[in-house]
Amino acid sequence: MGTVVIKFGGSSLSTTDKIKNAARRIIAEKENGKKVVAVVSAMGKTTDQLLTLAGEITARPAKREMDMLLATGEQVSISLLSMALTEMGAEAVSLTGWQAGIITEKVHNNARIVDVKADHIEKILQEGKTIVAAGFQGVTEDGEITTLGRGGSDTTAVALAAALKAERCSICTDVTGVFTSDPRYVPQARKLASISYDEMLELANLGAGVLHPRAVEFAKNHSVSLEVRSSSENEKGTVIEEEASMEKNLIVRGVAFEDDITRMTVFGLKNEITGLSSVFSTLAANQIDVDIIIQSQTENETNLSFSIKDKDRQEAVEVLEKEKGSIGFDHIECETGLSKVSIVGSGMVSNPGVAAKMFAVLAENGIQSKMVSTSEIKVSVLVDAEQMKPAAQHLHDAFELGVLEETASK
Amino acid sequence: MGTVVIKFGGSSLSTTDKIKNAARRIIAEKENGKKVVAVVSAMGKTTDQLLTLAGEITARPAKREMDMLLATGEQVSISLLSMALTEMGAEAVSLTGWQAGIITEKVHNNARIVDVKADHIEKILQEGKTIVAAGFQGVTEDGEITTLGRGGSDTTAVALAAALKAERCSICTDVTGVFTSDPRYVPQARKLASISYDEMLELANLGAGVLHPRAVEFAKNHSVSLEVRSSSENEKGTVIEEEASMEKNLIVRGVAFEDDITRMTVFGLKNEITGLSSVFSTLAANQIDVDIIIQSQTENETNLSFSIKDKDRQEAVEVLEKEKGSIGFDHIECETGLSKVSIVGSGMVSNPGVAAKMFAVLAENGIQSKMVSTSEIKVSVLVDAEQMKPAAQHLHDAFELGVLEETASK
Repeated sequence: MGTVVIKFGGSSLSTTDKIKNAARRIIAEKENGKKVVAVVSAMGKTTDQLLTLAGEITARPAKREMDMLLATGEQVSISLLSMALTEMGAEAVSLTGWQAGIITEKVHNNARIVDVKADHIEKILQEGKTIVAAGFQGVTEDGEITTLGRGGSDTTAVALAAALKAERCSICTDVTGVFTSDPRYVPQARKLASISYDEMLELANLGAGVLHPRAVEFAKNHSVSLEVRSSSENEKGTVIEEEASMEKNLIVRGVAFEDDITRMTVFGLKNEITGLSSVFSTLAANQIDVDIIIQSQTENETNLSFSIKDKDRQEAVEVLEKEKGSIGFDHIECETGLSKVSIVGSGMVSNPGVAAKMFAVLAENGIQSKMVSTSEIKVSVLVDAEQMKPAAQHLHDAFELGVLEETASK
Repeated sequence: MGTVVIKFGGSSLSTTDKIKNAARRIIAEKENGKKVVAVVSAMGKTTDQLLTLAGEITARPAKREMDMLLATGEQVSISLLSMALTEMGAEAVSLTGWQAGIITEKVHNNARIVDVKADHIEKILQEGKTIVAAGFQGVTEDGEITTLGRGGSDTTAVALAAALKAERCSICTDVTGVFTSDPRYVPQARKLASISYDEMLELANLGAGVLHPRAVEFAKNHSVSLEVRSSSENEKGTVIEEEASMEKNLIVRGVAFEDDITRMTVFGLKNEITGLSSVFSTLAANQIDVDIIIQSQTENETNLSFSIKDKDRQEAVEVLEKEKGSIGFDHIECETGLSKVSIVGSGMVSNPGVAAKMFAVLAENGIQSKMVSTSEIKVSVLVDAEQMKPAAQHLHDAFELGVLEETASK
């Protein structure tokens, strides 16, 4: 009898009625002969309410105590979902992170899972019971409660699936799968039957928002077959696996986008050799993520452009200006409110000219590209914010993402 | 440096402002040179909110899952109180029941503490930090989360005080101490400087409601010096210890009362020998607590009267009628809506005539006693509900509880 791990996010558990829906989905899996481990997040707005309480106490809560506080959110969900399952006749056992054997490094608020001690879960599954485990949380070897940070529940689900050698890890969410683009912006977008880990990683990192990149990476490293599907509708989702079933001529698999991006340029870097590393280690030391980087050299000076989130702009300028003497540069300029549009597809590797086609499409439609970044399976450009949506739509059309028939098995 | 344990109940933690007040009280103890272990309940209405959620899922929640759910309440409190303490400069560490080493028997919803593994707490106290431990909850030897039932947080506090050999266990509550009677009913009631464990046990069991009898009993068995005091006001409370400082002529130490009581009479018990045990084992098997018991025998038949809570009346009648054949009786009659008034004082043992004086006071005031029960240190009578308050006031006056000077050290 195979084991499946099913993860439900907070919006799929925001009311007791939704919790009952989640229970029905789990029971459907059991009726298909599966052993089920459910992994759950905190109910809907619980985390926000807990953050508000902490905010009333202090502006600088200790990280350890935030983990202690936030971990209660999933503990409420696991007990309620277990009650719902038992009420429906499927005996269930809830487990907190520490009870489920989720061992993490000794870091608060953003710990990584270092081990999963699955013997307790396996014993309960053998007894024919369903497990409802708390996502997002774990415990250190010396008994401290930790949380995994953003995307933590997805990661818990994948880690448990890997440890239990589950045949599948289903991520149940508000959408019915992974789409070729965001349907709110690109009405022609359609659901993909399958996608590779690497493509999903690029999409996840590019703001597609369905699955956290950490979880995708964990799944790839442990060959866990992932599925993204609706928590409420009974529709087939998107499967993420090593070799996604090839779709006819589908070189580009998706168009992703992300807004609120700032392009920052450091002019007149004095030292070509140490300048780059000084700038980026200063930013990294302040937890500012840098995305696209372009170095340009004129006869007289070296300039360095890079993209960051709008929200990090002020801090980035401050920390660089503070280190101006040691880094050695002339001045900084910023352009805020930009957007990034990306095409993703592992077929690009073997199909030259994809980037060229992308630039041609943008040019034909009068869309100026302000920065470019490429990897083996994606091309990203920064454009003005108001051009994000038309750029995505034109690219979606040009690469025929909306009209192609899928050949993947249904 | 001595250790003190301070317990805060839910109403002392119902808002973040009250949590800050609790933190100030703890810091005052630290400034007096004490190592402090705080024990907390869930914030205000948290438990009710969690019960409502569970009620929306099922009318018959699994007991294990209720413990899992309710244990989140104290976990929120411990993290917030720790944050408040750290914010005020007193570094604090929150501990759940399992982290605090509160080991219980393997019973859900009403577990007893079987061991306290205090080495982790002692290590943290040695580091100069304050502990904020979750009351009401524990863990079994095999890692199941349990709760202690009513009065659980008081019991946690006393158990930790015993394990840590604390010099005192302070129960911070809404009132400033233990009173000679309930001031809402008996305006002349005044606070006692001290009271013995046994007296407090009788008062607690008789509905005084300040301290849970389980906690008092635990304190007595482990010689923990208990104090009941206000969580907000800086007033001296009442000390509960083995030999309470004697107060001048204070034979009776308090007048307690309780309403919503039913007197039930089983008429015509067929078998005098097995009848009693059949009736009470049937009630016990259905978790119906019996208080006062009177057996009366006429020439022809044996009748059995006993008092129970009004809320248990219907179930009591049902379970007894169901066993009518095996128990063997004629019929049952009930009188509901009665009240119990009791006088308590360890001086009674060596002062005969206290009960006689009580009956005389009641008779002089036209109050009929419907059932009587005595122990070495208390006398209880059942009266009509509307006579509870006058009975308490007359007894309080007659035993001069309001006017006596305390000779106990201030």
